[in-house]
Amino acid sequence: MALTIGVDVGGTKVAGGVVDEQGRVLQRTRRPTPGTSPRHVEDTIAAVVADLRGLHEVEAVGIGAAGFIDADRGRVLFAPNLTWRDEPLRDEVTARIGLPVVVENDANAAAWAEHRFGAGRGQSHLVAVTVGTGIGGGIVLGGQLYRGRTGIAAEFGHMQVVKDGRRCGCGQKGCWEQYCSGRALLHEAREIADVQPARGARLLELGNGEPEGIEAVEVTQAAREGDPAALACFEEIGYWLGQGLADLTSMLDPGVLVVGGGVADAGDLLLDPARRTFERVLSGAGNRPRPDVRLAELGNDAGMVGAADLARQRG
Amino acid sequence: MALTIGVDVGGTKVAGGVVDEQGRVLQRTRRPTPGTSPRHVEDTIAAVVADLRGLHEVEAVGIGAAGFIDADRGRVLFAPNLTWRDEPLRDEVTARIGLPVVVENDANAAAWAEHRFGAGRGQSHLVAVTVGTGIGGGIVLGGQLYRGRTGIAAEFGHMQVVKDGRRCGCGQKGCWEQYCSGRALLHEAREIADVQPARGARLLELGNGEPEGIEAVEVTQAAREGDPAALACFEEIGYWLGQGLADLTSMLDPGVLVVGGGVADAGDLLLDPARRTFERVLSGAGNRPRPDVRLAELGNDAGMVGAADLARQRG
Repeated sequence: MALTIGVDVGGTKVAGGVVDEQGRVLQRTRRPTPGTSPRHVEDTIAAVVADLRGLHEVEAVGIGAAGFIDADRGRVLFAPNLTWRDEPLRDEVTARIGLPVVVENDANAAAWAEHRFGAGRGQSHLVAVTVGTGIGGGIVLGGQLYRGRTGIAAEFGHMQVVKDGRRCGCGQKGCWEQYCSGRALLHEAREIADVQPARGARLLELGNGEPEGIEAVEVTQAAREGDPAALACFEEIGYWLGQGLADLTSMLDPGVLVVGGGVADAGDLLLDPARRTFERVLSGAGNRPRPDVRLAELGNDAGMVGAADLARQRG
Repeated sequence: MALTIGVDVGGTKVAGGVVDEQGRVLQRTRRPTPGTSPRHVEDTIAAVVADLRGLHEVEAVGIGAAGFIDADRGRVLFAPNLTWRDEPLRDEVTARIGLPVVVENDANAAAWAEHRFGAGRGQSHLVAVTVGTGIGGGIVLGGQLYRGRTGIAAEFGHMQVVKDGRRCGCGQKGCWEQYCSGRALLHEAREIADVQPARGARLLELGNGEPEGIEAVEVTQAAREGDPAALACFEEIGYWLGQGLADLTSMLDPGVLVVGGGVADAGDLLLDPARRTFERVLSGAGNRPRPDVRLAELGNDAGMVGAADLARQRG
């Protein structure tokens, strides 16, 4: 029974878990992310691993991190949230724990987990879109994680969807994640509350009277109550999601598209408008097999489980 | 010395060639495309093959055709120009000529040819964009032609780049090929000539005084002469080309992007503005290796040579 550890390195917490061959998480732990210094984060990863190794025998560690990971899965070329540049994460962690380590982009790891154990089980060609604060992406082709020539494929969030559109943290304008993300959902809700306060009354109420007080979870709550303004917010980002999924299908012709991430916790509030748009705009739809659009199944565990499984399959 | 035949089935002509293992075309022939009836086109393909077999011993035939080809490379699911639907092209041609036949999308075949013998030699990860009347695409990943789950990947021309934009023959709006293609070049030139006749004087002159009289080759001619209006047309479609290449890079992380097709005959008139935009808009450009953007090398032969080579490597 080969067990491995998956570690998901986020901006606020480092979450680790012992994962078995069926993708089950046997044990979990987490620690706060200590600032952004690579040394301190690496120490924290080692501490998380040490916590878990005390309880189970494990053979390798997979680390999922937001950022560009190199083709050898050893170095973090660029991690915007952690402000890392060309950090030799694999070697640093290996030196601390003495186990084989694999580093992977977190959205790639999540895609792999959905392919192996989640909504994409049995599908050789899968595209995963993680809709959170921004958009992450992962691609599985022919049953293999597709990483690109240099390791940084599937950066879907930065496809331009609107010329001269909203400014993005990447330095460009009009990126997909500015129109389809938790941030975009809030943009819609706060704009309605600001410009059409009568229409946005329920949203304003949940935001304690201020557009800036509205949070994503409250837009979801209002939409679940049937509030038309909140539903319109999901229609809007659902439109952009469906259109992007259609573009990815024209490009990659997958068997299934899996939508995960925090915003996908809203379920059909997001998926229904996305599927409607997808069916309507898919080019050549009447003359081609159409892939399924499915909700991710592994939730917040996807990155951890995927990283652990990639560590198991290393080499 | 294994020779194969490549056949490029276009809307106006069926072009065939005997191709050797180095991608050289030893012999050529062509016949007009006889209407769009599958039976007649298949007879013409067989006749082209018969012409060439009289002169060389060949072991297989590859056919490149515009349209959706199925995963088994046997059937044409949908060919807009030929108005074919679910046509068993491989079996029909095999029955006529008694040789192994492989059917491939023409832009995929062209991408394969550039990977094997052209601008992408030695590059394991290649994206090819064929800019002609519309846009065709091809993807080579890990040294293999990437065809998708159902055979119809790389339909780049139908990614949406402008919401509610120009109408496309595919039934959607705002598709990339409506902004970056021979058609788009003419749209720009004729609009300038119509709305700003003084600025478009040279273009109008070449079009015999009528905006509708301007053809793509004349826009290229005027641009080569240095006409500012014609250069502005190439700037515009070059912008859209560069932006699309950046989006494809975010998604697929290739080592090289190869631009071919009729409009690419304009060379640096198209590639210079495309490269400028590509460098400017590539997301994370300062923190990632950057792929080359290259002009295709095989010109009109790419589809034929690629189809012949795929036939050689069949099975």
